[in-house]
Amino acid sequence: MVGMNMSARKRKLASAMKAAGVDALLVTHLPDVRYLCGFTGSNASLAVIGTRAVLFTDGRYTTQAKAEVVGAKVVIAPKSAMAAACEWLGGQGVAKCGFDSSQTTVAALETMRKALPAGLRRSLFTPVAPLVAGLREIKDAEEIVKMRAAAALGCRLFDGVLEHIVAGAAEVKVAAALEYQARLAGVDGMSFETIVASGERSALPHGRATKAKLPRKGFCTLDFGVLLDGYCSDMTRTVHLGRIGAEERTVYEAVLDAQLAGVAAVRAGASTGDVDEAARSVLRAAKLDQYFTHSTGHGVGLEIHEGPRLATKQTQPLKAGMIVTIEPGVYIPGKFGVRIEDTVLVTATGCEILTPSTKALIEL
Amino acid sequence: MVGMNMSARKRKLASAMKAAGVDALLVTHLPDVRYLCGFTGSNASLAVIGTRAVLFTDGRYTTQAKAEVVGAKVVIAPKSAMAAACEWLGGQGVAKCGFDSSQTTVAALETMRKALPAGLRRSLFTPVAPLVAGLREIKDAEEIVKMRAAAALGCRLFDGVLEHIVAGAAEVKVAAALEYQARLAGVDGMSFETIVASGERSALPHGRATKAKLPRKGFCTLDFGVLLDGYCSDMTRTVHLGRIGAEERTVYEAVLDAQLAGVAAVRAGASTGDVDEAARSVLRAAKLDQYFTHSTGHGVGLEIHEGPRLATKQTQPLKAGMIVTIEPGVYIPGKFGVRIEDTVLVTATGCEILTPSTKALIEL
Repeated sequence: MVGMNMSARKRKLASAMKAAGVDALLVTHLPDVRYLCGFTGSNASLAVIGTRAVLFTDGRYTTQAKAEVVGAKVVIAPKSAMAAACEWLGGQGVAKCGFDSSQTTVAALETMRKALPAGLRRSLFTPVAPLVAGLREIKDAEEIVKMRAAAALGCRLFDGVLEHIVAGAAEVKVAAALEYQARLAGVDGMSFETIVASGERSALPHGRATKAKLPRKGFCTLDFGVLLDGYCSDMTRTVHLGRIGAEERTVYEAVLDAQLAGVAAVRAGASTGDVDEAARSVLRAAKLDQYFTHSTGHGVGLEIHEGPRLATKQTQPLKAGMIVTIEPGVYIPGKFGVRIEDTVLVTATGCEILTPSTKALIEL
Repeated sequence: MVGMNMSARKRKLASAMKAAGVDALLVTHLPDVRYLCGFTGSNASLAVIGTRAVLFTDGRYTTQAKAEVVGAKVVIAPKSAMAAACEWLGGQGVAKCGFDSSQTTVAALETMRKALPAGLRRSLFTPVAPLVAGLREIKDAEEIVKMRAAAALGCRLFDGVLEHIVAGAAEVKVAAALEYQARLAGVDGMSFETIVASGERSALPHGRATKAKLPRKGFCTLDFGVLLDGYCSDMTRTVHLGRIGAEERTVYEAVLDAQLAGVAAVRAGASTGDVDEAARSVLRAAKLDQYFTHSTGHGVGLEIHEGPRLATKQTQPLKAGMIVTIEPGVYIPGKFGVRIEDTVLVTATGCEILTPSTKALIEL
């Protein structure tokens, strides 16, 4: 099964390489390497020529590479894996080798060139669009299974953590309880630093859990994700401690309406900008759009932030198999904030919500 | 206090910039930004001209930037923070603006240039050595206090987790228990994915915790770090479940001797390569050096891997105030592995061990 996926991915990549005018590709971004051959080590370069692939890594990973790599030859390089990959590419009669300029530093490019014979230094490497990232935007069957599992675990963890959301508990204690259960459930880790932002801190879109105590009355935003079998989940719910006030309720309902409108706008063929606008226009009508200071969503997969971007004026069309977040929020500085986020799988006619935890207001 | 540090750091940076022949510097690597102005958000570019600094970030961070930033003007950019910083730099009459080529992608450099007036595109930006990373290698008084606190917490967590190391427990359960206590102690997170590698898996230098059960008899390597107040701890201990065998004891003692020899070689003025060799030669004498497949250590601070590198043939001299790991290991594929690691502060005459947990063999 895994082997079949790797073959299909490499065939698609070979087409993309052909379209980009290169006969080889040097892949150094680790999630891209993992996507193409299954290797999860922290040092790797994958040289791809057509549908052939060779993985270069170092001596720490001899055993692990043998166990993990599918459909690629493995070379343990004595020194730099990247330099070894370039040296090898330099001897294969390749005319043009692409590299992802958004994942390759200026210094790395110099190292890559220095590893080549003098005659190839100026001509071999050419920047190309992020070809592997492009493929990764559309999840294949195996990836969808893993993303569903990660998202479902996220929902179970949310249900379980509610009992820890009590006035006087520190935000970090809520995060600790959630992450402990995640670990016991077999995650590799969290997909990003858990956000627990309560009371006035809920107005911080990226309010990581602190020692601040949950208030008797006020919002608590939880934004978290697990890393399960390599894949990220991502969801946000905002709950209220104590009886909710009128202004807070108005904002909560506006954000929920915006989130539902965003989800309703998702389907293959819809533009990412239109989905953003579907959510944003609801907040505009409620005169709250000035407090919605970020984009509506992003792709999720092996990484927590992938393409496509769902933001103002983006024109990229959604495609079936993309998995994206829909996460509008309203943040009123010094007062409070609300964000509600689902991860959804784009389908021909709409989407499947992978994070079906209730979005009805929860008063604790 | 904090403000005083930021001023001193910027003065040192200004000297380094002068020596590198640039009158300005664009800082985009987030730990470097944090080091120079205190900002911890996920999107930031810091433009530095002499000792003046301007931080560019986005609307999600308006409140946070106001609370955190010291000694720099803050600009909330409507679009790309990096492009906004470059546009601003383009209007300041700067002749040469350096950038860290090891932290700047080829695509980012193109974006940076496009944000400039046409007349400056070819001339303004010039790659320079990692100037801020260079400063960060030597910790100032405030940083040493924080590193001591992070390392001391690591030691307490190690003591506390020993009771969870029992035959039949899953590796992830050990990691979960350790990380839960870390969270309750107020960490921001772990500084890298916790390694719990038991039995045959101890032969994997980077064996992240899995569902594998701890054996009745065999090694269990714990390599973990906390992120406390922005700073990373890093330590490794290898304990043995059950009575240790003769071969295992021989290897454990050789690794411990190598680690002690590495620590003993640390002092201001010693070369990083000599410290590596001090540890490596002990394993060579024991005919185990073929199983020591990585370098002896690395700097630690805001990031888990910083300069200097303590590896074969490195010539960089250690300086007082550097904080580095000493972590030799022996990994016998299919059998077992042992690694012992301390984090130490380099002093004029030797070093202070920041992770003083016992290294005597623990049989559980």
